[in-house]
Amino acid sequence: MKKHVVIVGGGFGGLSAAKKLSRTDFKVTLIDKRNYHLFQPLLYQVATAALSPADIAYPLRSILRGANIEILLGHVNEIHKEEKWLTTLEGSRIDFDYLILSCGSTYTYFNSPQWEKFSPGLKNITQATEIRRKVLLAFEQAERESDPERRNALLTFVVVGGGPTGVELAGALGEIARFSLIRDFHNINPGAANVILIEAGPRVLATMPEDLSNEAVKQLQDLGIDVRTNSRVMEVSDEGIKVGEEFIASHTILWAAGVAAVSINKKLDVDLDKQGRVIVQRDCSLKNHPDIFVIGDQAHYEYGPQNTVLPGLAPVAMQQGRYVAKIIRKGGTPLERDHFQYVDKGQMATVGRSRAVAMYKGIHITGFLAWASWLFVHIYYLIGFKNRISVLFQWAWTYLTFKRGARLIIENESNWVNDQGSEEKHSELTAPPIQ
Amino acid sequence: MKKHVVIVGGGFGGLSAAKKLSRTDFKVTLIDKRNYHLFQPLLYQVATAALSPADIAYPLRSILRGANIEILLGHVNEIHKEEKWLTTLEGSRIDFDYLILSCGSTYTYFNSPQWEKFSPGLKNITQATEIRRKVLLAFEQAERESDPERRNALLTFVVVGGGPTGVELAGALGEIARFSLIRDFHNINPGAANVILIEAGPRVLATMPEDLSNEAVKQLQDLGIDVRTNSRVMEVSDEGIKVGEEFIASHTILWAAGVAAVSINKKLDVDLDKQGRVIVQRDCSLKNHPDIFVIGDQAHYEYGPQNTVLPGLAPVAMQQGRYVAKIIRKGGTPLERDHFQYVDKGQMATVGRSRAVAMYKGIHITGFLAWASWLFVHIYYLIGFKNRISVLFQWAWTYLTFKRGARLIIENESNWVNDQGSEEKHSELTAPPIQ
Repeated sequence: MKKHVVIVGGGFGGLSAAKKLSRTDFKVTLIDKRNYHLFQPLLYQVATAALSPADIAYPLRSILRGANIEILLGHVNEIHKEEKWLTTLEGSRIDFDYLILSCGSTYTYFNSPQWEKFSPGLKNITQATEIRRKVLLAFEQAERESDPERRNALLTFVVVGGGPTGVELAGALGEIARFSLIRDFHNINPGAANVILIEAGPRVLATMPEDLSNEAVKQLQDLGIDVRTNSRVMEVSDEGIKVGEEFIASHTILWAAGVAAVSINKKLDVDLDKQGRVIVQRDCSLKNHPDIFVIGDQAHYEYGPQNTVLPGLAPVAMQQGRYVAKIIRKGGTPLERDHFQYVDKGQMATVGRSRAVAMYKGIHITGFLAWASWLFVHIYYLIGFKNRISVLFQWAWTYLTFKRGARLIIENESNWVNDQGSEEKHSELTAPPIQ
Repeated sequence: MKKHVVIVGGGFGGLSAAKKLSRTDFKVTLIDKRNYHLFQPLLYQVATAALSPADIAYPLRSILRGANIEILLGHVNEIHKEEKWLTTLEGSRIDFDYLILSCGSTYTYFNSPQWEKFSPGLKNITQATEIRRKVLLAFEQAERESDPERRNALLTFVVVGGGPTGVELAGALGEIARFSLIRDFHNINPGAANVILIEAGPRVLATMPEDLSNEAVKQLQDLGIDVRTNSRVMEVSDEGIKVGEEFIASHTILWAAGVAAVSINKKLDVDLDKQGRVIVQRDCSLKNHPDIFVIGDQAHYEYGPQNTVLPGLAPVAMQQGRYVAKIIRKGGTPLERDHFQYVDKGQMATVGRSRAVAMYKGIHITGFLAWASWLFVHIYYLIGFKNRISVLFQWAWTYLTFKRGARLIIENESNWVNDQGSEEKHSELTAPPIQ
């Protein structure tokens, strides 16, 4: 009988492993709670109305068509490490010989989960369209607001977290206000919007060299963005955000800080790091469970002479996925396995048009060249011929016209039943934004 | 002081009026609950995963940029006909000299509003993505269902209503099952799905000539769709639908029947027809209120020697919008106004690739030519250069590959707070589909 490899999660890591295991002597099952692979690095472009969700998401069944891999839409519930089987919330029981966990990560609101209500994160499509709605709606509400203080709060956008996502979000918000909306309103000047980027640490893009951090800050400031490092968030409410001792009145606070692991890790009964990631062996397996692997953002992998922890980047997950697939195919005893070798593909972040920073093998690039590389790499790795063309087209259009192609505020709209005169709906629109 | 024209609703009617009134001596305000114009005729393509919402929706502010028209995002609440002012739910009070109401229509579930829960309609983007989710999820659930009876119910899709939307939805569902998904599943054969179209009247596309109705039925049957005319819906539940005496077990029932007017009509205190539409004068105005106009789907307009009521089509709304703008610009007393003259632009409906029916000035067209005309007309009227290119590209892609570009099941996904071990979410996925 064929040995059964079960992969949980169809992100960069899981998908790379699945592809490497397709058409082999293994039976392979991929379990994901979504029916699509999400190209997470471009999610902020959905949140900022440049792309549509379908541009950065591609059905798993289409990607793996003909790969002879079983795909199951479901949520993993319990994992029995010793007996080697797992269950899903949907009621399936699945036995495995090998298990690859690649479930990604989420944001943490530190010890204040109640902040999430006022400050959505950016990890999935629902959150991205919700952020898009919130941002566009703030301009609409400002347009009809006569009180200058409230209008100011509506036109103040705060991004918490100076990692790549936070930098990219803040940059895109700056561009929306300054270019995309500039001529669309009568009573407000969208260009007067304040975009503030808050970072608790001493610099943005902390995983990059200092000169690139400084360059990114310069690029952000060119776009009129107020970058505040060494700033600690003390409180978030529907009225604004308290940073250190200062209160900033803002209607739109976006969260891109603090990485936390997925909840399944706690159920695994293994060693976790401070962020809740699973501490894995040199072959990405669990201690004493050489047939269970954890890869990508979900894993804590120490590497190199200084035992640095590998960052939560797509290349890390992809390389680990391919590596694990290779050692499974190879077979043999765990002792015979080569350790995982990480090949550093560099890092990059974009701030806006012709504004970006990148590093590759010790070379630091900024400005247009970095931005062009960023475009190329992201198009190259985007899955699906159609998505590549579509994204290219929309980027070209946005570049030439300064417009944004997906400027939709989508509410949970009234349906027939609710339309019969009820007035409690559309609370977001109805309620005065800041009281 | 400039006279103030207030337009409610940025659909085909309201937008046509607004454009005709731009850069005139009138102050013009357009109020809509959405920030975008929705190209409703293609909404079924979002519901069937061919297009993304942003392809058929375009920001009102972009369309009317430079038109010198004030745009207000809001919900009209009360209209004071005599005193000529209205209020919005958001708290604005707006005086007007002329009022143009173009608020469209919704579906009616006759006297059974409780059916809506099991059978979503298709009037807005939220509903379209919800239908897309429901349809794609049914295939996923069928894939992991072992009970043949339940699997059958999951693979049975019922569309209620044989108008253009119902015909187009049923046709697209037939194509999804037969072409798009055919090689994507292991345990089920999507091609074996049943698509049933239910029509209470004696024929589908009742507003078209009989030979075209018959041709559409033939085209639907070619796609394997079970077309049932003279069939009355008796009951809809989460287990299926009762049609006449027969019970059809189905997990996916879509509603495209019964037109009802929007709720504001009841507040107007004017004569309404059976469907709740406002009965208007020959100049589209309200009786005794010559400065208040109702146009498009919201209006009941009798026309021609037989006093036929104009159908709820985009060309009717657009012509009425332009007509009303013209008589407002002309001024003069109501008695001097020319009556509205309707120019019949024909009708068309598409069933699938190379399958359509169309009529224009007494000429009946079917098959490829009708389909090509349908494509041309819809691309031509679609607003925005970018949307046209994008839709053209996606159609070409779907035509060549038989794939669908927006096959996303988007749930209200877990966020960090909810991810901490709660299990009551994802009820749709968790619960056995048919109990």
